[in-house]
Amino acid sequence: MAQYQPPKVWAWDQPSGGRFANINRPTAGASEEKELPVGQHPLQLYSLATPNGVKITAMLEELLALGHQGAEYDAHLLKIDGEQFGSGFVAINPNSKIPALLDCSTSPPTRVFESGAILIYLAEKFGEFYPQEPAARAECLSWLMWQMGSSPYLGGGFGHFFAYAPEPLEYPINRYAMEVKRQLDVLDQNLAQRRYLCGDDYNIADIANYAWYGALVLHNIYGSAEFLDVASYKNVVRWATEIEARPAVQRGRRVNRIWGPEEGQLRERHDARDFGVQEEMKKGG
Amino acid sequence: MAQYQPPKVWAWDQPSGGRFANINRPTAGASEEKELPVGQHPLQLYSLATPNGVKITAMLEELLALGHQGAEYDAHLLKIDGEQFGSGFVAINPNSKIPALLDCSTSPPTRVFESGAILIYLAEKFGEFYPQEPAARAECLSWLMWQMGSSPYLGGGFGHFFAYAPEPLEYPINRYAMEVKRQLDVLDQNLAQRRYLCGDDYNIADIANYAWYGALVLHNIYGSAEFLDVASYKNVVRWATEIEARPAVQRGRRVNRIWGPEEGQLRERHDARDFGVQEEMKKGG
Repeated sequence: MAQYQPPKVWAWDQPSGGRFANINRPTAGASEEKELPVGQHPLQLYSLATPNGVKITAMLEELLALGHQGAEYDAHLLKIDGEQFGSGFVAINPNSKIPALLDCSTSPPTRVFESGAILIYLAEKFGEFYPQEPAARAECLSWLMWQMGSSPYLGGGFGHFFAYAPEPLEYPINRYAMEVKRQLDVLDQNLAQRRYLCGDDYNIADIANYAWYGALVLHNIYGSAEFLDVASYKNVVRWATEIEARPAVQRGRRVNRIWGPEEGQLRERHDARDFGVQEEMKKGG
Repeated sequence: MAQYQPPKVWAWDQPSGGRFANINRPTAGASEEKELPVGQHPLQLYSLATPNGVKITAMLEELLALGHQGAEYDAHLLKIDGEQFGSGFVAINPNSKIPALLDCSTSPPTRVFESGAILIYLAEKFGEFYPQEPAARAECLSWLMWQMGSSPYLGGGFGHFFAYAPEPLEYPINRYAMEVKRQLDVLDQNLAQRRYLCGDDYNIADIANYAWYGALVLHNIYGSAEFLDVASYKNVVRWATEIEARPAVQRGRRVNRIWGPEEGQLRERHDARDFGVQEEMKKGG
């Protein structure tokens, strides 16, 4: 087979159509005028229960569990099959990715995009899960940023080539499998010494990393559990299991989820009672 | 050609040797005992003038230009051909990547790793380049985190497959070229409305994004300028050019640089006068 030679100037072979044709594209911005729904609560979240989405719903449920009524939120389902290119959403997140937050408790409302930014924003607003003491704060920031810079190799790299690409390509799969195993080992060695990523206290670095690496070691994302031998990272499994047992994290995982077992799906969340209503409906049949 | 079938469990085909054999590996941690040098200044930086390294040296030079003597630093060259696996470096950054910072003004010294974490740490320590007002701070955090989550697609994705992989693979090159062009368009549309990423004021989000996207549009990294038609992103070029003209950024770019024109290389920086000494030596022969 002749070796591929890139052209001098890259050009977009526009897909002919179909469900995913509009998702990946080389341009940014809105493709249609579309207003976003706005609920009654101070915080308006537009999201989906991917790992990046779970970071924020878990954080919000943790804040509510501590009694911060200002963290009450409406979680609107934003499907990434085109809704991310609506003008209302692009105004909140010019990058057209979930999650995005609008804080309506300020005047004018404040937008925040990128899950790592939303975590720090909420942590600072409510004074929780983000150490004040400089050394502890540095450690928390380091592990939070580690997740932001590492997980693109897990999701957009490994997950894409292992599970979603049109055909399995050996070189990219090897490249990203090696990197993801290295990342798991980084976490595992740290968690061999510490209960949480930064020591004895649970914080936003744990929430961010749990959302991705917990999904990887506990929920077989990309069907890769055996391939990556995730069970061998015993400290990661222990830590992720402990975090996932937290009631707030359990609730956060269900919000804006539209796949998996039906009892795990709460497509939109507009009230703390929505979790119970969903359960009652199940019992009632 | 038969389609590649991944094995059930991934295994490392260990490279037989050579310069890069020890760089990518599926495990973390130190491979040898090795102390790090420690200089006289409050801040000890272990780095290399890649985009992630330039973020920090540019920030430190900006802080010094504002008169913050506490930002005086020693910049030690850390070559990533194996030095990142020395025990001293791993103790500061368990992820074995540059840049890593040790703040010796605290007792005990404080470690910070990940360039985005170091930027926030320094911004908070000196009270500069990071807005206090919540909405402006949210915007700064959003664009900083956008860089952290996006650039892995530029460096580890596009750059790798376009310039470093053993052979050019069409699917990954297309995938990442499209994404990088989308990222450039996200920046370009924002910068069509604003002087800096967050408005009228220059902050750590600009420093972080300039380091990567400035290198891409001004310095032809990966030899990709024509392929990606970077000149068409005129607002990004205008913004990056303005930032690069700042004297502090000019100095920061030279620190720990070991490639390119010799006059642009200051391999280690231990004193503000090192920049001048280097220039004097050039003039003298």
